[in-house]
Amino acid sequence: MEDGEAIALALEEAKSAALRGEVPVGAVLLGADGALLAQGGNRIVELKDPTAHAEMLVMRAGARALNNERLTGTTLYVSLEPCAMCAGAMAMARVGRLVFAACDPKGGAVLHGPRFFEQPTCHHRPVVEQVETHAAEAGEILRDFFRARRG
Amino acid sequence: MEDGEAIALALEEAKSAALRGEVPVGAVLLGADGALLAQGGNRIVELKDPTAHAEMLVMRAGARALNNERLTGTTLYVSLEPCAMCAGAMAMARVGRLVFAACDPKGGAVLHGPRFFEQPTCHHRPVVEQVETHAAEAGEILRDFFRARRG
Repeated sequence: MEDGEAIALALEEAKSAALRGEVPVGAVLLGADGALLAQGGNRIVELKDPTAHAEMLVMRAGARALNNERLTGTTLYVSLEPCAMCAGAMAMARVGRLVFAACDPKGGAVLHGPRFFEQPTCHHRPVVEQVETHAAEAGEILRDFFRARRG
Repeated sequence: MEDGEAIALALEEAKSAALRGEVPVGAVLLGADGALLAQGGNRIVELKDPTAHAEMLVMRAGARALNNERLTGTTLYVSLEPCAMCAGAMAMARVGRLVFAACDPKGGAVLHGPRFFEQPTCHHRPVVEQVETHAAEAGEILRDFFRARRG
């Protein structure tokens, strides 16, 4: 699968999450060979699991698919800049590349806040790419969700 | 359960983790009423799950026990200073208090590295206590494990 297709799929997963009443963030994990390992969205409310961010769910599913707790060479696509929990998990899992759409100045931990991958206590840094082409749409999915919830 | 008993139990869980071949870190979660909600150690290798740190497992088990993705008022006891993933999860889960034994200058994210709870992008800060009484023993469990693995 190509980058454009994978990030578009992550955005579709974000929209599906919104329909389930979850904060709409979606993620896709591709193997080193570009094959789809896992896709999913937030399921925090559904699973009553505070750690059930889209990224965490696809990393865990990917590790199960590979039967390996290390996701070396994989690429993780996310509709939103990951938080500290998810960035920390990516380092632990040795994810090779992170591609995300919208920035999250309020809760992101990659380009904002702790900028975790730049910390000397971070022992594995994925290649990081923010894709402007899908940033506006990914942000709009989130704004629509919160606007509807307030309304 | 009292603080001393809970942190001692976290250290017992760390020792059990070592016997399973896991990096020996243990954790205990008490409810707002002091009742034991969950206890456990790392199971990364066993579960082939890069996110299966002791803290993550007990937070997830505690949320299941309370049938609530928020762990408001709970106290999390850990044998080692939590990493960025676990600190991020604690903020997400609204853990009330964090009590840990040994510091982790190389990978910790509470008193070291990103000092996540001090970041403006951290939206919930547990009360943090480092207990010197159990720090040496918790560190020794880790050193013994890595010494044996190298030997």
